[in-house]
Amino acid sequence: MFKINENYLKLPGSYLFSTIGKKVREFTEANPDKKIIRLGIGDVTLPLAPAVIDALHIAVEEMARKDTFKGYAPDLGYDFLRQTITENDYRTRGVTIATDEIFVSDGAKSDSANIQEIFDVNNKIAVCDPVYPVYVDSNVMAGRTGEYIPEIGKWTNVIYMPCTKETNFAPELPKEQPDIIYLCFPNNPTGSTITKDELQKWVDYANKVGAVIIYDAAYEAYISEENVPHTIYECEGAKTCAIEIRSFSKNAGFTGTRLGYTVVPKELKSGDVMLNSLWARRHGTKFNGAPYITQAAGAAVYSEAGKKQTMEQIAYYMKNATIIREGLLSAGYTVSGGVNAPYIWLETPKGMTSWQFFDYLLEKANVVGTPGSGFGPSGEGYFRLTAFGTYENTLEAIERIKKL
Amino acid sequence: MFKINENYLKLPGSYLFSTIGKKVREFTEANPDKKIIRLGIGDVTLPLAPAVIDALHIAVEEMARKDTFKGYAPDLGYDFLRQTITENDYRTRGVTIATDEIFVSDGAKSDSANIQEIFDVNNKIAVCDPVYPVYVDSNVMAGRTGEYIPEIGKWTNVIYMPCTKETNFAPELPKEQPDIIYLCFPNNPTGSTITKDELQKWVDYANKVGAVIIYDAAYEAYISEENVPHTIYECEGAKTCAIEIRSFSKNAGFTGTRLGYTVVPKELKSGDVMLNSLWARRHGTKFNGAPYITQAAGAAVYSEAGKKQTMEQIAYYMKNATIIREGLLSAGYTVSGGVNAPYIWLETPKGMTSWQFFDYLLEKANVVGTPGSGFGPSGEGYFRLTAFGTYENTLEAIERIKKL
Repeated sequence: MFKINENYLKLPGSYLFSTIGKKVREFTEANPDKKIIRLGIGDVTLPLAPAVIDALHIAVEEMARKDTFKGYAPDLGYDFLRQTITENDYRTRGVTIATDEIFVSDGAKSDSANIQEIFDVNNKIAVCDPVYPVYVDSNVMAGRTGEYIPEIGKWTNVIYMPCTKETNFAPELPKEQPDIIYLCFPNNPTGSTITKDELQKWVDYANKVGAVIIYDAAYEAYISEENVPHTIYECEGAKTCAIEIRSFSKNAGFTGTRLGYTVVPKELKSGDVMLNSLWARRHGTKFNGAPYITQAAGAAVYSEAGKKQTMEQIAYYMKNATIIREGLLSAGYTVSGGVNAPYIWLETPKGMTSWQFFDYLLEKANVVGTPGSGFGPSGEGYFRLTAFGTYENTLEAIERIKKL
Repeated sequence: MFKINENYLKLPGSYLFSTIGKKVREFTEANPDKKIIRLGIGDVTLPLAPAVIDALHIAVEEMARKDTFKGYAPDLGYDFLRQTITENDYRTRGVTIATDEIFVSDGAKSDSANIQEIFDVNNKIAVCDPVYPVYVDSNVMAGRTGEYIPEIGKWTNVIYMPCTKETNFAPELPKEQPDIIYLCFPNNPTGSTITKDELQKWVDYANKVGAVIIYDAAYEAYISEENVPHTIYECEGAKTCAIEIRSFSKNAGFTGTRLGYTVVPKELKSGDVMLNSLWARRHGTKFNGAPYITQAAGAAVYSEAGKKQTMEQIAYYMKNATIIREGLLSAGYTVSGGVNAPYIWLETPKGMTSWQFFDYLLEKANVVGTPGSGFGPSGEGYFRLTAFGTYENTLEAIERIKKL
């Protein structure tokens, strides 16, 4: 008699964004006349850049002709894209990454969920709290997190690193020693970053205790301040302790196009075993490559026109971020983020819980945000707004919030 | 100190097709004047159908305009595609599948590798021998297969169901009781099928012993004979015991475009728990949907023009299959497959092992095939040729083989 993976049943309730979707649907059905503004899910709204569109059309035409048709892609990604990545995302920052240290995938969500597979089930993870829920959830499914304690919203076998007002929204080195450390900078959901010197401390710590850092840099393109690292490999020694995950979703609007990549340096080893080989084996066995047309589109992001156009998109969103940030500040909210990230993190007013504020904002301002508690127990009492809406909607949403 | 997933190290050597690729590269470098014909990997060669190309261009244009741009797709797939699938792949065969029983993905390889995750690590799997290596390898990585015994090429905790000349290339009900049964019909690599009555016996058996069947129907479009089921749900009771995996790779040439889907009926349960909910949870947590443009292209496969054009492609490949099959028969080989599948399965001559015949064919005829032993121990002494080459190359390859 077959049995299921009981770890799945431990996951409390449904996934954060599904719950939000359900609440919004129910509100819309009950209030069909209200115009909802969604500043909740981190989904982009600007269309793909012209350079990307051109590349897609050209690639589609290649798929239409016998002599240029592409079947199975190389499991780990086309060389043309991997070379472009090493040159543009790393060499320009003084970092040398070999093309065979880059693994092209269908996105950072898959990679950040799947990367735990190459580690022992008894490894202990440490996560920022609050953070993107996929890190913890994928480890729950693998049976790595112990039991859930609903009263405190924590797993018994996870090390939580609180990132609250008290810690300036940055994690502190954990007292208990972890095996795998998930870091996400610029952080989702708090929008905060740490300096290169601060990140160096994490790299030194990981190398010292033999931990591996899973570094999610999906929002790297939004960094505006000096001295904030764009890649963890700017830090000395990172290649022996860190895996970096990157996305095309937020810098080039690929949320519905799907492309990402992960860097696993060959220096990163457990004894004699290179993690690079393990991840290559996983890609080769469980994945059949990202589509050719998508990889061609990804390469176009790095063309001169592509760079210019996607930088304009980022500037558009960051203008929204400024509107949200300054609007909330002027309305008396306590706010962080929104400077090096498209996320604005606010303290809920009047002692409301995160979900109470969600309902309040939905009902009174018809604005959808994301409850901070959905990202971890230390997110309780906070709320996330995103800069990915249209300029007009962002402006209107903030006007409505100001009037509350 | 982090530890790796030691199960990965149990995997013997590298993945079958990587090894073939390496051997071919080495031969080509040593013999740059020789024209290699590849009838090895099951990759298509015809360009995408015009109806699919048109749909791709239209979808790309939608991604270029603010009012039609698509961000994150629904995790489980767009309704337009899921409805088209239920109508065309199931209703036409008298089978009712609800749209929320269909999970759209980036391909059958991912799904067939990932599906084991929702089951307990102590479940015992049964596989056809030989078969597509991903079923076993993904279970090795999960720690479900025991130890590998190189002398016999088997895992201690896997039930092998030999599919050889002696069993007419069909599996027999196993003596030892499995929890999870992988079936692939039309089979990769043998090209054989079983009748609806025979498949019904498997469904009855699974329901009786409480096993789940993972039914890989990636080659369904190549079925030419009556009485061969196109979906396992043609069998009575299949919805309480079977998951079906489908692909767009072989019926519509999507190997480099990436699209597939998996059906998990809501009647399929373990106690009160629907496997449908578990798979939905996995999709929602570890996958961010197939790209919109790809799903639009998938829907075009089912348009009137799309159906006609892809059927012509299948006819083209099946003409190749006939050329290979008849050519080999006339050259004195013992051959099966090639009637309901694009794969031709031959016995290696003169007692050669599969890899000896691989080298022999590569060196003497400059033709690349796939060693049967790469698909499981009972594949030893067999060899796979595929019909996915061009007509001209297929003809030439068979002429070369005939002359040996």
